[in-house]
Amino acid sequence: MDYIVSKGKNAKKASKILSILDSNTKNKALIRMAENLVNNSQAIIEANKIDMEKGKEKGLSQALLDRLLITEKRISDMAEGLREVADLPDPVGEVIKMWKRPNGIRVGQKRVPLGVLGIIYEARPNVTVDAAGLCLKSGNAVILRGGSEAINTNKCIAQILKDSCVQCGLPEGAIELIEVTDREAVNIMLKLNEYIDVLIPRGGSGLIKTVVANATVPVIETGVGNCHVFVDESADMAMAKDIIVNAKTQRPGVCNAIETILVHQNIAERFLPYIANELYKHKVELRVCQDSKKILLNTIEDKEIFNYIKDVTIEDWSEEYLNFILAVKVVQSIEDAIDHIDLYGTKHSEAIITRDYFNSEKFLNEIDAAAVYVNASTRFTDGSQYGFGAEIGISTQKLHARGPMGVEQLTTIKYIVYGDGQVRI
Amino acid sequence: MDYIVSKGKNAKKASKILSILDSNTKNKALIRMAENLVNNSQAIIEANKIDMEKGKEKGLSQALLDRLLITEKRISDMAEGLREVADLPDPVGEVIKMWKRPNGIRVGQKRVPLGVLGIIYEARPNVTVDAAGLCLKSGNAVILRGGSEAINTNKCIAQILKDSCVQCGLPEGAIELIEVTDREAVNIMLKLNEYIDVLIPRGGSGLIKTVVANATVPVIETGVGNCHVFVDESADMAMAKDIIVNAKTQRPGVCNAIETILVHQNIAERFLPYIANELYKHKVELRVCQDSKKILLNTIEDKEIFNYIKDVTIEDWSEEYLNFILAVKVVQSIEDAIDHIDLYGTKHSEAIITRDYFNSEKFLNEIDAAAVYVNASTRFTDGSQYGFGAEIGISTQKLHARGPMGVEQLTTIKYIVYGDGQVRI
Repeated sequence: MDYIVSKGKNAKKASKILSILDSNTKNKALIRMAENLVNNSQAIIEANKIDMEKGKEKGLSQALLDRLLITEKRISDMAEGLREVADLPDPVGEVIKMWKRPNGIRVGQKRVPLGVLGIIYEARPNVTVDAAGLCLKSGNAVILRGGSEAINTNKCIAQILKDSCVQCGLPEGAIELIEVTDREAVNIMLKLNEYIDVLIPRGGSGLIKTVVANATVPVIETGVGNCHVFVDESADMAMAKDIIVNAKTQRPGVCNAIETILVHQNIAERFLPYIANELYKHKVELRVCQDSKKILLNTIEDKEIFNYIKDVTIEDWSEEYLNFILAVKVVQSIEDAIDHIDLYGTKHSEAIITRDYFNSEKFLNEIDAAAVYVNASTRFTDGSQYGFGAEIGISTQKLHARGPMGVEQLTTIKYIVYGDGQVRI
Repeated sequence: MDYIVSKGKNAKKASKILSILDSNTKNKALIRMAENLVNNSQAIIEANKIDMEKGKEKGLSQALLDRLLITEKRISDMAEGLREVADLPDPVGEVIKMWKRPNGIRVGQKRVPLGVLGIIYEARPNVTVDAAGLCLKSGNAVILRGGSEAINTNKCIAQILKDSCVQCGLPEGAIELIEVTDREAVNIMLKLNEYIDVLIPRGGSGLIKTVVANATVPVIETGVGNCHVFVDESADMAMAKDIIVNAKTQRPGVCNAIETILVHQNIAERFLPYIANELYKHKVELRVCQDSKKILLNTIEDKEIFNYIKDVTIEDWSEEYLNFILAVKVVQSIEDAIDHIDLYGTKHSEAIITRDYFNSEKFLNEIDAAAVYVNASTRFTDGSQYGFGAEIGISTQKLHARGPMGVEQLTTIKYIVYGDGQVRI
């Protein structure tokens, strides 16, 4: 407890200095971090070896071990990321609007840092670097709490980042790593309202649910994505195919990949065999509704494909597979499609493929999600794809930030008011 | 539990309709509400009599009884408030920005309602009307949970508002009142994430703390204001006096009134007797630090004034008096003043009175509060004073909304993306 509170105090104190720091100094520190990471590659890789060995002993999955692994290439990617953050415009200090009231006071909205951000994440050590860079750029101090699997790597990286700050005259508390990896440390962070302004959990849905359920510090929820593509009856079939294949297979393990396609009944007989053939080439397993199955049984010639087709269950509609699996449903109408998304979607990213003006507008208006697409892949829900530079996560909640969060989303505003003696009447 | 959930379901369902409703229909409903409130004045006053009698039996304070009381005048004020909300621009549907990415997709940020708002408040029945009006205008459904003292009044008012909605073709669930007034009902609301998007507690600090500590639904914290005026050594004394008198006495029971003044040591000998004389005229009790006391003992001629001067205690610095009491402290420097505000302030509204350019900028930059003033009264922190029209409260947190929250702050954004077949590479 005392340990976490002392980290909180350091970060809070540092945040006051960071909040008024000029951009040049922040950028210098970011570039120094990048240099020091590369210059200390060997130390990082050594530390990472300890984590990798422990991970193998513990029997971590190959996927998890891959996320944990640090290589020279990955270090230079992280360093490159920091340099890109240095190149971004500084959001802090911008006066977004300023207006004059009838009594002569001028009221302005000025962008300021949030203060201290708490980032709670899992195995990937690159989050340590990404989060530290984005928080520093936006004038925030950060308290990092990574997973126990990566603790040696994280300690090594965090020390390098802290040293870089100090070398550039920044307060040491700008970046604090919680080196205790038990659950209790997280529980304390969740209620550390005095020192942490906002918590951002990054990881699986279990982690996110725990944080939301137990935090008294305000939380920005990120990431869980049960995304859909609706193929309207007027869809361009080739376009629908390209977008579905992209949204499902280009990187299935991420939140903006799709998990279900909804196909309008009037196009289903032509479209389903076409897309099933395509997805078979990518070894995507289909979990199909009864209507889809009937059509596929009548239309698919290559019987091999049926090895990749299974009956869908009601649980599938809520599933975030993060894998080469896609649920398939025939819907009666666009209203049906919207209702299905309403019921099972996670308000992340949703797409319609259509030629119809009214349906495109209806979908854009009525779907309640962070990002709604017409004739484009859901994979675009991403800070760099939207032009924000790096992102700290994708918010699926409605408060404060929705969708990809770049440095701007790590700020808040304060009102600044200039008067010459005005009082309220 | 079932009761609250059913209210939640109704509101959620209604919110989907409200979110895409045109402004004309919403405004018609707001005006109908205003008319129906006035036309049903007698029924409201009758219902209010029951609450007033029960309140007297329970021994509620005179101040509380006054907040509870409904008169013809107060009803017409509420109706007028609704008409003003109808006149505000509709924030929903505005596309704040839209830009084109190199691959041709167009990405837009569109303002949309939050969904379902839960408002938890205390004795004032006018909150029922204000909140319902602002939520409707911003396309949100609302679940109202007022205090038990006002339950009969609130039931009568809420029914009139609901009927007005239905008369104008709006869904009945647009406005839901929780008629159960025990603590358990609130506890259920706090965790009703499936149906409530955001909670806004309005009331004393006890209520707000309870909501923040126990809610899993995202909360916007409002209102507690321990505000300061710092009188810099270069201050115009008459201006400082006018602003302090205004910020303390114009309406001491509200959150943007000041509770402490900090006076620079180099102006203290001249300023303290001057302001003490002024505040004595307004029957303001001063709680003064030792330095202030020494000066006042040497300079105040009218010994009567000392009846209104007491020694300050350390607890006073944290006190939100909401009354004709003001703490007074002599500080060594602007840094001292900023440190004091940092330590004891609630990040609401803070003012400096100065002629010095660098000190004005330093105060604006370094004070961490929703609103920071130079040479103007803290009483301006208010939606109508800033030009937002009505407000639903003043946020003292940093996420989502900070400072006065008008209809715009009751919205979020969604990204709308127009493509012609783009996929991610």
